[in-house]
Amino acid sequence: MKHQAGSIVIKLSGHVYFSGLDISLLERLVTVILKIRDKGYKIGLVTGGGHMARDYIRVLKNFGLPNSICDLIGIEVSKLNAKLIASILGERCFANIPNSYDELLGIVMNSGNKIIVTGGLQPGQSTNAVAVLLAETMKAETLIITTDVNGIYDKDPKMEPNAKFISEINITELMRILNTAHQAGNYGLFDVLSLVLLKRLGIPAYVIDGHEPENILEIIRGKHIGTLIKPEV
Amino acid sequence: MKHQAGSIVIKLSGHVYFSGLDISLLERLVTVILKIRDKGYKIGLVTGGGHMARDYIRVLKNFGLPNSICDLIGIEVSKLNAKLIASILGERCFANIPNSYDELLGIVMNSGNKIIVTGGLQPGQSTNAVAVLLAETMKAETLIITTDVNGIYDKDPKMEPNAKFISEINITELMRILNTAHQAGNYGLFDVLSLVLLKRLGIPAYVIDGHEPENILEIIRGKHIGTLIKPEV
Amino acid sequence: MKHQAGSIVIKLSGHVYFSGLDISLLERLVTVILKIRDKGYKIGLVTGGGHMARDYIRVLKNFGLPNSICDLIGIEVSKLNAKLIASILGERCFANIPNSYDELLGIVMNSGNKIIVTGGLQPGQSTNAVAVLLAETMKAETLIITTDVNGIYDKDPKMEPNAKFISEINITELMRILNTAHQAGNYGLFDVLSLVLLKRLGIPAYVIDGHEPENILEIIRGKHIGTLIKPEV
Amino acid sequence: MKHQAGSIVIKLSGHVYFSGLDISLLERLVTVILKIRDKGYKIGLVTGGGHMARDYIRVLKNFGLPNSICDLIGIEVSKLNAKLIASILGERCFANIPNSYDELLGIVMNSGNKIIVTGGLQPGQSTNAVAVLLAETMKAETLIITTDVNGIYDKDPKMEPNAKFISEINITELMRILNTAHQAGNYGLFDVLSLVLLKRLGIPAYVIDGHEPENILEIIRGKHIGTLIKPEV
Amino acid sequence: MKHQAGSIVIKLSGHVYFSGLDISLLERLVTVILKIRDKGYKIGLVTGGGHMARDYIRVLKNFGLPNSICDLIGIEVSKLNAKLIASILGERCFANIPNSYDELLGIVMNSGNKIIVTGGLQPGQSTNAVAVLLAETMKAETLIITTDVNGIYDKDPKMEPNAKFISEINITELMRILNTAHQAGNYGLFDVLSLVLLKRLGIPAYVIDGHEPENILEIIRGKHIGTLIKPEV
Amino acid sequence: MKHQAGSIVIKLSGHVYFSGLDISLLERLVTVILKIRDKGYKIGLVTGGGHMARDYIRVLKNFGLPNSICDLIGIEVSKLNAKLIASILGERCFANIPNSYDELLGIVMNSGNKIIVTGGLQPGQSTNAVAVLLAETMKAETLIITTDVNGIYDKDPKMEPNAKFISEINITELMRILNTAHQAGNYGLFDVLSLVLLKRLGIPAYVIDGHEPENILEIIRGKHIGTLIKPEV
Repeated sequence: MKHQAGSIVIKLSGHVYFSGLDISLLERLVTVILKIRDKGYKIGLVTGGGHMARDYIRVLKNFGLPNSICDLIGIEVSKLNAKLIASILGERCFANIPNSYDELLGIVMNSGNKIIVTGGLQPGQSTNAVAVLLAETMKAETLIITTDVNGIYDKDPKMEPNAKFISEINITELMRILNTAHQAGNYGLFDVLSLVLLKRLGIPAYVIDGHEPENILEIIRGKHIGTLIKPEV
Repeated sequence: MKHQAGSIVIKLSGHVYFSGLDISLLERLVTVILKIRDKGYKIGLVTGGGHMARDYIRVLKNFGLPNSICDLIGIEVSKLNAKLIASILGERCFANIPNSYDELLGIVMNSGNKIIVTGGLQPGQSTNAVAVLLAETMKAETLIITTDVNGIYDKDPKMEPNAKFISEINITELMRILNTAHQAGNYGLFDVLSLVLLKRLGIPAYVIDGHEPENILEIIRGKHIGTLIKPEV
Repeated sequence: MKHQAGSIVIKLSGHVYFSGLDISLLERLVTVILKIRDKGYKIGLVTGGGHMARDYIRVLKNFGLPNSICDLIGIEVSKLNAKLIASILGERCFANIPNSYDELLGIVMNSGNKIIVTGGLQPGQSTNAVAVLLAETMKAETLIITTDVNGIYDKDPKMEPNAKFISEINITELMRILNTAHQAGNYGLFDVLSLVLLKRLGIPAYVIDGHEPENILEIIRGKHIGTLIKPEV
Repeated sequence: MKHQAGSIVIKLSGHVYFSGLDISLLERLVTVILKIRDKGYKIGLVTGGGHMARDYIRVLKNFGLPNSICDLIGIEVSKLNAKLIASILGERCFANIPNSYDELLGIVMNSGNKIIVTGGLQPGQSTNAVAVLLAETMKAETLIITTDVNGIYDKDPKMEPNAKFISEINITELMRILNTAHQAGNYGLFDVLSLVLLKRLGIPAYVIDGHEPENILEIIRGKHIGTLIKPEV
Repeated sequence: MKHQAGSIVIKLSGHVYFSGLDISLLERLVTVILKIRDKGYKIGLVTGGGHMARDYIRVLKNFGLPNSICDLIGIEVSKLNAKLIASILGERCFANIPNSYDELLGIVMNSGNKIIVTGGLQPGQSTNAVAVLLAETMKAETLIITTDVNGIYDKDPKMEPNAKFISEINITELMRILNTAHQAGNYGLFDVLSLVLLKRLGIPAYVIDGHEPENILEIIRGKHIGTLIKPEV
Repeated sequence: MKHQAGSIVIKLSGHVYFSGLDISLLERLVTVILKIRDKGYKIGLVTGGGHMARDYIRVLKNFGLPNSICDLIGIEVSKLNAKLIASILGERCFANIPNSYDELLGIVMNSGNKIIVTGGLQPGQSTNAVAVLLAETMKAETLIITTDVNGIYDKDPKMEPNAKFISEINITELMRILNTAHQAGNYGLFDVLSLVLLKRLGIPAYVIDGHEPENILEIIRGKHIGTLIKPEV
């Protein structure tokens, strides 16, 4: 099945879209998604967990449960968010929210030109990593990761006033910077697995501020917004 | 399979236990549940959705979705809460959270002496109604419904300062009062279906304040706490 | 996805279509369904249980099983009937018969222009109620309920010779009449839940004699046949 | 897991137990099953479809559907009957009714000392064949097949007044006789597959009249009732 | 749904395609399948287990497991092979590999013009039998069975140097020959069930050498290759 | 549920146990597993894919499929191996082979004292990583990883004649060594994710030669065999 305009995967930040459930922001997001779809794109959406995931995880940690079970409750929250988005999109998306990569692959194969929506899949694997896997499976040309700041910085911009914004970076360099940043202050934008998978995938990824969903459209139109992670040659 | 001390179903209020995720309250609740289990009771737990359910439902209503789909997202939240409780209880409870009454019945049949945990099941059916259905299926002797006030009033106690507390009432009389209350001020403690099912079931039900989970133990010990809904002779 | 001619939900009476399994009647019914489909309608079919459901329920009641388990075996019979109809319709309908409303919603989202077939879903909820829920979920314009008499009467027409036929009625008035009728002689045409859901849905519903399936086509062509339950303004 | 008294598989005739749903016969059957269980046997029950299966199959045949789809609706009826028996037995049996041999094997492995209940599994495979497969999987010592006459005859006893009753026969001889009988008058007691599987299994099988369920107990106590099909040495 | 050029079912020999995993042969096979699809055929593929199935079965037999469980592990291998083919075909085939005939029927109903891929389904039933069942369910006009020799012989051609090739045979005659051959030397090309089902189906079947997948195309173009099993008039 | 003697997780090397399917080795392995069980241990087994996984992956890579789909076919092979082991163990193990971590957690909760068997779960995650996750979820005291050499070396012992055997090492030091080894010669004993998870888990892990399954018993008896990876203090 050919999708006229190619395929695109968008990671929907849990913190931005689901923590406050700001309806006008969600309306803007849905408008953007439908516009992309009208241009003939096959779309994959990956929902994060947000504050709620963090709160539920905190409870289980307090009861001394192992990390993998804590991760799992966070995944359940991300799947709840996927269900919310899928309910809003209705018949325009494939109904099923996958419980494993195996199911996700089946959905990619069976969904025709419908929008695909998924939350997290597996403990130890962030929803960013799921977004990269979905892009790989859909053979997407572009990956857009929304977050709650306007791109990637060399340090955590919320902690360090002199953090420098990075407009464009290649993946190996990014791995080096985040590794340093991680040790310095736990700047948890990307986990290692996401980056390893993204490096192997070799497509451009944009990290942008989710509060301006219209920027997703701008990127598709060819504009450079946020941080571009360039694939290695 | 005989459960030495009988069976009991407890509705865990979404607003009380899951809206703020107060860990010390959850710890007290779990302590109570395990004490009841140690006394030889077969236990069924039904989790509500709480504020979070309300927030997710509000989003879907805003997007113009039909009531049944809105109900469904609320059910998903209650199932997330069921998963949280089941994760904490671990091997002491049956792992599966049912998606339908059919699955719930299978769990009742297969779970041996493990604790059963369920959220909501079906649009148009409150988690209170699920609690009554579970009590019926488990042949429970007692149903305890926790809520965010200390029992049933003749009017909504949060709205009407002169609402009168009801210590004991039979089910038909309750249906009459709630019907009146409902028209007056949307006092949504019980939906009609729960009451119809409870009447048909014919076991005593206690409505108590969930903020004092120890009171569940007191009721099992024979104390009268909160409001007792008496079965019809 | 737009369905050119709109959506329609038809409740197929268990007593009429499945109790005797009259093949020529089933052939007429299938002809009608395919004609409606050829006009461009998206169709939802809900099958009742009929005499067989009643017989199986009677066995379980005799063994002292709770009502919800008795309901469940009746639901299984209605699902068997759904499977029969789906097998006859073949590739023209979506293969899966849902086990819960959640699955039904997924089927509505994934089924494209295929016919949807479902039986009952949940104890305490009649197949009439399922028909209303399906109409709500499919955003149907019309609901047609087939039964074994030619519409609604003010009393049970099989019991009371002077029962008066009602050609048109609004939903609130109907609730009042059935409530009275119910007390008088257990005239079980509609359960309370169906009516509450129908009132909330706000679309016209026709109650007609299933022995003349061609009348379904007449209603779609604009004729008034049987009893019209008018939505409230 | 050792089952003190061994394992036994009983095929419950659809025609005898489910066609008329004779409650006192079902009560006698359940009494017998529970007595066998109290003796420490692990029990497997296989339910047939009966007249109802035949009626539903007739409808699909009339609509020109292929044999395998016709078989499938008959299997659904046998699964409905399995569900009826499982509901009556409650916690004493494993709740799940298998949809395939794979699931049946899982049930055998997970069910501990609970009674196993299954209907048909697959088109082209009778419920007698399922009973033999289940006996093989459970390593049962005895297979009891209930039917609507008192054992095996050399011709169809309902058609041929001079049909001779066979008290004891080995499997190869039986295959020869049924083959002849089959050509003469479609005496459909056993299909070929059942006999092939039974021959390979090599355990004694009794064919008895289901109208006297107490005879199942007698066989377990060592009496010879009905026809004994002897395994080959 | 009409498939312009009709439907065809192809049994993919486990020994030929999956035992050595010869990539250039698999590439030729896939090229042939896609060419058939481009001609407008609805295609069903059934994968065998091959040597690997035989090896896994041998282990379980050695541990004394019953035949049905041994069969099951062979079925799992055939499903692995189905998954391999489905992964290669991607969006051009329906993703789900069925676990039972019931699921297979659902896939036939829901798959539109996508290629269907299945492995084995049930112990006691060869993948040849599955191919016949699938042809019946899809109302296929032709069945092509690939194997590791160039057609059917009157004796096992690998054992008997004077085995005679059969170019055309009707099904009853084939049953007679294979029955004889079977007793002589266990020439296991077809099991009884496959032949019984094929006789009932009444469509032509070709048995050809899988090492020349291009011959499948030739058969579709009307050439006679390998052995033609003619349906009875 | 308390398991008298604690819990243990054993990774069964695909190359050692499943590539040649050496029956006498499998018999020795099963004898060891049952002895450990008789000592009162709760056991978790994780099966690798072996050469067969590698062969199937090679096919998909050749057809240009993305890594995650290639991983998936390897996981299917490991699940086939899990099914083989589960079939041999029969009622002594829980029947279900999980498709996701969520299902694995359910199995840990529901399996009582039965042996748990799982293959791989997710692309990008080795079966070694699954073994660590399972140990975490079961709160195992010991993890034993079988492989095809007698422990960990500072370089790949199959490539470098002067590779030095490591008898005991802490996890951070191991990560450093493997990282170096990995760059030098692709010594793929452990993937990064396994080590990160193992570090977080903090229990001792033994890497031993799977060809001597009796050594597993020796380790349980307190002997030091192979390489001990010590948790960080």
